[in-house]
Amino acid sequence: MTSGLKNLAPIKAMEASGTPSYKVDVEVKPNGRAVTNDSNGSILRETSTNGTRSTNIVWHKCSVEKNDRQELLQQKGCVIWITGLSGSGKSTVACALTRALHARGKLTYVLDGDNVRHGLNRDLTFKAEDRAENIRRIGEVAKLFADAGLICIASAISPYRKDRDACRSILPDGDFIEVFMDVPLCVCEARDPKGLYKLARAGKIKGFTGIDDPYEAPLNSEIVLHQEGEVCPPPDAMADKVISYLEAKGYLQP
Amino acid sequence: MTSGLKNLAPIKAMEASGTPSYKVDVEVKPNGRAVTNDSNGSILRETSTNGTRSTNIVWHKCSVEKNDRQELLQQKGCVIWITGLSGSGKSTVACALTRALHARGKLTYVLDGDNVRHGLNRDLTFKAEDRAENIRRIGEVAKLFADAGLICIASAISPYRKDRDACRSILPDGDFIEVFMDVPLCVCEARDPKGLYKLARAGKIKGFTGIDDPYEAPLNSEIVLHQEGEVCPPPDAMADKVISYLEAKGYLQP
Repeated sequence: MTSGLKNLAPIKAMEASGTPSYKVDVEVKPNGRAVTNDSNGSILRETSTNGTRSTNIVWHKCSVEKNDRQELLQQKGCVIWITGLSGSGKSTVACALTRALHARGKLTYVLDGDNVRHGLNRDLTFKAEDRAENIRRIGEVAKLFADAGLICIASAISPYRKDRDACRSILPDGDFIEVFMDVPLCVCEARDPKGLYKLARAGKIKGFTGIDDPYEAPLNSEIVLHQEGEVCPPPDAMADKVISYLEAKGYLQP
Repeated sequence: MTSGLKNLAPIKAMEASGTPSYKVDVEVKPNGRAVTNDSNGSILRETSTNGTRSTNIVWHKCSVEKNDRQELLQQKGCVIWITGLSGSGKSTVACALTRALHARGKLTYVLDGDNVRHGLNRDLTFKAEDRAENIRRIGEVAKLFADAGLICIASAISPYRKDRDACRSILPDGDFIEVFMDVPLCVCEARDPKGLYKLARAGKIKGFTGIDDPYEAPLNSEIVLHQEGEVCPPPDAMADKVISYLEAKGYLQP
């Protein structure tokens, strides 16, 4: 049996290092093979023990799973999807949120609709099908980040319900947390931080969300952030609301 | 000045929580504004202090940067790009590597060329331009993961030097670590784990790398993994070689 264990040095090292709760069981099957299981029950490797070289790896599964990464990070991976009109404060809330979570030792990453267009989505235009593809790709990448164990904050106008729901549908139940920036168009237009509403009103931008293209407000978003009377709450207060939700749902622990 | 500081509660909370080395300085500029800097020197926010409401946020920068995440994770973000023929052992090494790094408490994520085709890249075919786009997108996503502070292990045949070099070019110097699985075609074909060489030889797959499409071996990859005589080293030994490189280059600390 020792020959079968020789190759398990790295697994034993795992046990010794005391890092995230690896429990490794080795059992000998009737066919003379040693089977190694990790604490998730995944078969790590199956090794010949019948006196021949122990390098005959019969079956090998990649055993670092989402759970293991979550344990390492002491949090649960998820996607916080911030949707709303241009100028509604999506990026501001994303920023306040990433700072507040980082201050608690949580690992976050902001995927910004505009920024992603400089890299992954730089082949996409602003025509209808490309806008849908833009959202689809952000959703797919956000899913990978959540699978990696991160709290991924995606910030994109994402005006169509269908596109947002498609992103929701590829994630495990509960892991897509929609945050609706419920700010009236007139407020966003008065802010006009990028001067885009002015251009849209002048007809220099076509198909601008809220002006000549619809924004389909979420019907059942997990979180709605809105003005209090005429006043917009400070970004940190809005971030706190999201953090309270994460806490209540258990996302800030593994 | 106190009115200017009221809004800084979350930053003060950061200091109190003792999480990753946030040093916050507040100085009052001659124009009566309080400027808050983090330890990276980024301006976090500038707040009016001349007796009016302290919610007039003049300038706001998203201040959680790669450095901050690296500090949290106690590692440096990078991309380990494993290239080689089908059957050369890319996935096996990726798996051994992610396990060994996880056992050391390091956060990794494996982007597998095949797996990504089920999600982000499911709109792509196997024709030449789509294969290039497949690699481009994996490179862009790997870059995001490295920016998030992870050790991202990308595993894809990626037969063309030009496509791999394009992925290298979008990353900071040193952060793209190319690992060449230097295994002779005859060995890969003898293994044929997916039965693809057989199909390619029978003419049932066209443009198969190594058979009727070229594999352009790296000229200056950071790491070459090859057989020792006729014997392929165990996956863990190959992973160790990569880990030694990461250690020597300082990627296993912030």
